[in-house]
Amino acid sequence: MKKNEAIDYCINLAKNAIENDIRPNPFVGAIIVDQANQVIGEGFHQKLGGPHAEVYAIEQALQKTTDLSQATLYVSLEPCSHFGKTPPCADLIIQHKIKKVVIASLDPNPKVASVEKLMAAGIEVEVVNDSTATLLNAGFFTNQLKKRPFYILKSASTIDGKIADYAKNSQWISNAASRQFVHDHLRSNVDAILTTYKTVIQDKASLTIRNTEGGIQETNVIIIDKDLELLEKQYENLPIFYPRSLSKIILITAHTPSIQLPENVECITGLFDEQGLLFSSVSETILEMGYYKILTEAGSQLNSSMIHQNIADELYWFIAPSILNDLNALPMLGLDQFCALDKKVQLSLIETKVIDEDVLLHYRFNQI
Amino acid sequence: MKKNEAIDYCINLAKNAIENDIRPNPFVGAIIVDQANQVIGEGFHQKLGGPHAEVYAIEQALQKTTDLSQATLYVSLEPCSHFGKTPPCADLIIQHKIKKVVIASLDPNPKVASVEKLMAAGIEVEVVNDSTATLLNAGFFTNQLKKRPFYILKSASTIDGKIADYAKNSQWISNAASRQFVHDHLRSNVDAILTTYKTVIQDKASLTIRNTEGGIQETNVIIIDKDLELLEKQYENLPIFYPRSLSKIILITAHTPSIQLPENVECITGLFDEQGLLFSSVSETILEMGYYKILTEAGSQLNSSMIHQNIADELYWFIAPSILNDLNALPMLGLDQFCALDKKVQLSLIETKVIDEDVLLHYRFNQI
Repeated sequence: MKKNEAIDYCINLAKNAIENDIRPNPFVGAIIVDQANQVIGEGFHQKLGGPHAEVYAIEQALQKTTDLSQATLYVSLEPCSHFGKTPPCADLIIQHKIKKVVIASLDPNPKVASVEKLMAAGIEVEVVNDSTATLLNAGFFTNQLKKRPFYILKSASTIDGKIADYAKNSQWISNAASRQFVHDHLRSNVDAILTTYKTVIQDKASLTIRNTEGGIQETNVIIIDKDLELLEKQYENLPIFYPRSLSKIILITAHTPSIQLPENVECITGLFDEQGLLFSSVSETILEMGYYKILTEAGSQLNSSMIHQNIADELYWFIAPSILNDLNALPMLGLDQFCALDKKVQLSLIETKVIDEDVLLHYRFNQI
Repeated sequence: MKKNEAIDYCINLAKNAIENDIRPNPFVGAIIVDQANQVIGEGFHQKLGGPHAEVYAIEQALQKTTDLSQATLYVSLEPCSHFGKTPPCADLIIQHKIKKVVIASLDPNPKVASVEKLMAAGIEVEVVNDSTATLLNAGFFTNQLKKRPFYILKSASTIDGKIADYAKNSQWISNAASRQFVHDHLRSNVDAILTTYKTVIQDKASLTIRNTEGGIQETNVIIIDKDLELLEKQYENLPIFYPRSLSKIILITAHTPSIQLPENVECITGLFDEQGLLFSSVSETILEMGYYKILTEAGSQLNSSMIHQNIADELYWFIAPSILNDLNALPMLGLDQFCALDKKVQLSLIETKVIDEDVLLHYRFNQI
């Protein structure tokens, strides 16, 4: 087995995990290869707080041989070197005198320093910096390095980039299958949905997850509402205030509220300027509350502002096969700023998908 | 062989033709199937003025058997019934007493009426109306039915639908491979490129075909230039006026020019309103001049106007992985009209293609 094949093997193992079961932990896969280049142990990180991938791989290998001194461990992410929810994997590797460790991507957490620890113990270490392994844990890396949630934008527009007509009619731009995709693959795979009080009021949005059988599932919702307008009496029967048993509404406001908050509603305060919320003032708090991965579903202004603040991580863009051909229609993105061509925001294409006649383009933002 | 398989077989045969060799004739493929359901003859229309697909198929079948009275002819387009550049295929079918004819799409030309002729001769006829067979000859059908060229729009934009920044800088939005695709697959496959005098001046465009080895090929260019500004002395050295031996420049103007025209430049007059050229005033003339398939390469205004006039047939849209996020940047499309969501223009997706990190979406307009 070649090195690249071994790394791909680890990455494919890692993908067996269900993200909702492990978040905020990373996806990790590991294999042990013996002197004859045969895989004698494999594993992946399956559950938050459960054994790491390396533990499974080593335990499986030990059932076949007690001597790992000629074996190589391949792992998609740098092994842990500190006591967290489990003992350090680096210690386990050293204990079994594994000959060599090949690491496909380094852990950005400074507490993780197993490369040095392993080398000090006489173990050969190779770090590959594989881009697929890094992309697999984009959310985890963002959480660790930037101390903020991983923010995913979603937009549905016509070919000419409009999300509503001149009179703000927007139902429906994208087709039914695209809308179901949002429920099945986007809302289902994040810790909260981020939106604005305007969208909640205008769209009478509940922001639940509706499966294809019609079943409804709750979601956490984070709503930017500077002046807590949503708490006005006239809005108390909005769909967003459905009875919640598993989820919360978090309002981001400029001032700590003096009134009693409804059940399952919490407030956090943030700084605002004339463009809206400054995300740097709330992102770490949101992360610490356990919202590691967030889907933004809102209008042009919030999406544009998040891109401008350089905190948009991914974009899912649904393109309907239609054209409004009207300058007065609502654009998907845009601030009243002057951006020269050479200052444009660059993205990388992750995937394209045809959903009936809609096209879904999935991008990653190339952040600086 | 089932009916659908036989029709697909014919369509695949038809596609063997090189469009530039047959235009304005349609793509046609035909097969003869004997009583034992074996293909005993096949052919496709190869060259303008040359034998039709049915002729090849029948001649090949006759080498195997002189009796076609139990055979079925499958053909992707209704056989001709009139004397054109070749004798009518319907007569040939009748002459050889072919039992049955299955036609995948009808010819829109009212002079073609072979269904009636064949049936009157006692031949069983089945018309299928296959959508792939119809799409294959979209250009031919448009020429015949609408008495105008088949108009293809091309645009390259950012994700937020901008073709240039606020200062009109547009070099380059799309990547090098996308631009080469335009030369290899779009410019090379039309009879002329349509643009405006503004684009020709602003982009210093030559609109030639540049192959990957750097070779240059001429193209016919049709330029909308109401007041013949391009003929002003200051523009005589523009790249568009390169020495031409195989191609022409056609200027569409409001008034017949009184001055002597440069070599290889011709004028046709059209009607203009405040939005620009009214295509209905020139389309038939352009068609009669032999420009059957035309690629529009221009700015937002011409594309928007052609969509508004309901004469855009196809769109090739290159999407670069970037965002300007600026309301002041130049939009790909849009007129200052008010278009309600339910009046939007509908398109059908033909193909998606990833070109490096650009995405190419190819659409057909669903015209009324």
